[in-house]
Amino acid sequence: MATVSDPTNFSRDRTYVVSLVVHPDRTVTFRFVAPDAGEVQLHGLSSSARGTFIDPPKRMSQTDDGVWEITVGPVTPNIYRYNFLVDGAAVNDPNNSEVSQNERTLGNFVEVPGDSPVIYEIVDVPHGNVTMRWYMSSTLGVTRRVFVYTPPGYQDSDDRYPVLYLLHGTGGSEANWTVEGRANFILDNLIADGAALPMVVVMPYGRAYPQISRESGSIGFRENIELFEGDLLNSVIPEIEGNYRVLNDRDNRAIAGLSGGGGQSLAIGLGNLEVFGWIAGFSAAIRESEFDRVYGARLSGAPAPNLLWVGCGDLDHLYDVNRALLKWLEGKGVDHIAHLTGGGHDFQNWRPYLHDVAQRLFRPAAR
Amino acid sequence: MATVSDPTNFSRDRTYVVSLVVHPDRTVTFRFVAPDAGEVQLHGLSSSARGTFIDPPKRMSQTDDGVWEITVGPVTPNIYRYNFLVDGAAVNDPNNSEVSQNERTLGNFVEVPGDSPVIYEIVDVPHGNVTMRWYMSSTLGVTRRVFVYTPPGYQDSDDRYPVLYLLHGTGGSEANWTVEGRANFILDNLIADGAALPMVVVMPYGRAYPQISRESGSIGFRENIELFEGDLLNSVIPEIEGNYRVLNDRDNRAIAGLSGGGGQSLAIGLGNLEVFGWIAGFSAAIRESEFDRVYGARLSGAPAPNLLWVGCGDLDHLYDVNRALLKWLEGKGVDHIAHLTGGGHDFQNWRPYLHDVAQRLFRPAAR
Repeated sequence: MATVSDPTNFSRDRTYVVSLVVHPDRTVTFRFVAPDAGEVQLHGLSSSARGTFIDPPKRMSQTDDGVWEITVGPVTPNIYRYNFLVDGAAVNDPNNSEVSQNERTLGNFVEVPGDSPVIYEIVDVPHGNVTMRWYMSSTLGVTRRVFVYTPPGYQDSDDRYPVLYLLHGTGGSEANWTVEGRANFILDNLIADGAALPMVVVMPYGRAYPQISRESGSIGFRENIELFEGDLLNSVIPEIEGNYRVLNDRDNRAIAGLSGGGGQSLAIGLGNLEVFGWIAGFSAAIRESEFDRVYGARLSGAPAPNLLWVGCGDLDHLYDVNRALLKWLEGKGVDHIAHLTGGGHDFQNWRPYLHDVAQRLFRPAAR
Repeated sequence: MATVSDPTNFSRDRTYVVSLVVHPDRTVTFRFVAPDAGEVQLHGLSSSARGTFIDPPKRMSQTDDGVWEITVGPVTPNIYRYNFLVDGAAVNDPNNSEVSQNERTLGNFVEVPGDSPVIYEIVDVPHGNVTMRWYMSSTLGVTRRVFVYTPPGYQDSDDRYPVLYLLHGTGGSEANWTVEGRANFILDNLIADGAALPMVVVMPYGRAYPQISRESGSIGFRENIELFEGDLLNSVIPEIEGNYRVLNDRDNRAIAGLSGGGGQSLAIGLGNLEVFGWIAGFSAAIRESEFDRVYGARLSGAPAPNLLWVGCGDLDHLYDVNRALLKWLEGKGVDHIAHLTGGGHDFQNWRPYLHDVAQRLFRPAAR
């Protein structure tokens, strides 16, 4: 495998290799051009050993033309993050354009398909659309972008739909749930099977930037949550309800999120039970010291949620605090669903969590 | 500037630095973590020396914690591509998530803003949306993605709009014109000024993949053009005209593209003058040996285009062949607009080209 001239002509002297290649037997070949490097390693990025396909990092072999190469696997079907270590420096695969665009970082990923379609695969069913909208945030004083999934049939219908507000994690962006989370394909597949009700899914950017800097820590922290709550309630929701055929009562609004966005979902959802009737936290970034103050005061006197769903994996660094939340909810006598699983703090868990929650949402029987 | 722990927690041991920083005086600081590298360089990627802010590549300095750093400029306001060379290996900036996602490659870019808003900047005017749609291509037998810009006011209106089909270049993707080309913001700004008519802009993927492999060369080559033409005419246009309020006659359909997509626009546009009334090539990848066969036969007997626009820069490797096309059009007595400029084969030219063409499209006086 020699290098190939860059067909884009954007550079006068750039070459590229074909990386990655997923073979029919589920082995995967990665390549990287570095003629003068002493060592290049393939590095599986994950929150836990279970979330990766290669641990620890493995040395690649130098072939002709300075190309480093490795074939690994067979790999269990899933979507995995990876990068390369070039003499120890962490770099992306410049020849794989499948990337998650986060606030500050890029994450390459590789998808290994299964024999039968998995929950997030693109199959020949009707597909919804994902629209990028730009809106002026009155709370934050800047133009922000939001992703909006509309289900199959939305354009041809006069129906009004329920809405799920779906939040990314700290360090992530409004693109994550589409690009890496495959929320749109998960919903397409569930709706095609009759397993979820058609719904609109709204994916905003969860950091209250520029008031909160991108280096200031978890988006599940108090100061960010309060500013983001203003953006969500005063700008995002009116923008959606003014421009889409959606239902606008608590029984038809849900909020869910992962990690820092899970902390946001629980705080904003439980804090606004007249706005949101369905609430879910996936590996939620929460603090036990805040349970009474943040959730306790708000749960009393407000209408009970139709769904309060708390999920976490046993290899997640937030497992203990989520178990503490479940215990606290039991102590308060608050109805909820505990969804404790294996696995860590990654989309290998969050895609199935969305798949579970989406099937429960907006069911009349649960109201 | 020390390294910062990765707030995403997607890796147990990853750190990042803040790169890049555009300062108020238009100098720009880049950083990269590589404790054990012998040399890290900042590399301006461009088709010509004029299209970059740094040429040749410049050595960065190693600071604390193994972080390499460089500050360059002041830089002339524009959007530039760059990467790093780590002991000679070309790598992306892993801490800048502004990237162009091409077929096989990722391109980082840096935007240096001007004193007054430039044609592609996000300012507080009404914004259109960009929707990602998935459709089944009957020609290619796979589900493909297309980006669709709808102008401000589209959702609140019953009007029908004209449509521009806007094509990317070889090696690129359906995302390029939005992410790097800023087509949506260019249109928003022109429409807000009353300088362009509101229009829908459709940005399909121009390689006839999987029939044409991603390594098989220019998308402006014959075999790819013919298959893509089938996808465009038989799947993309019916998908758009069946799902959007658009006008569906030649006076309200335009086709334009850059590089390989410019070659496609000229061949498909001139080959289907009953479908497209407005045609533009930006740095079009074309072959002089094909002018008579591809364009000549089709121009005779068909209705004349309302607009035939040919633009190229004098540092572009396709300048001579585009000048030859202009000479050939003169020889045939075909009305056209020659838009010869400075500059090379890059978005620094293609953004202004779109800005020029969009103002000319769909004007009744030109029909």
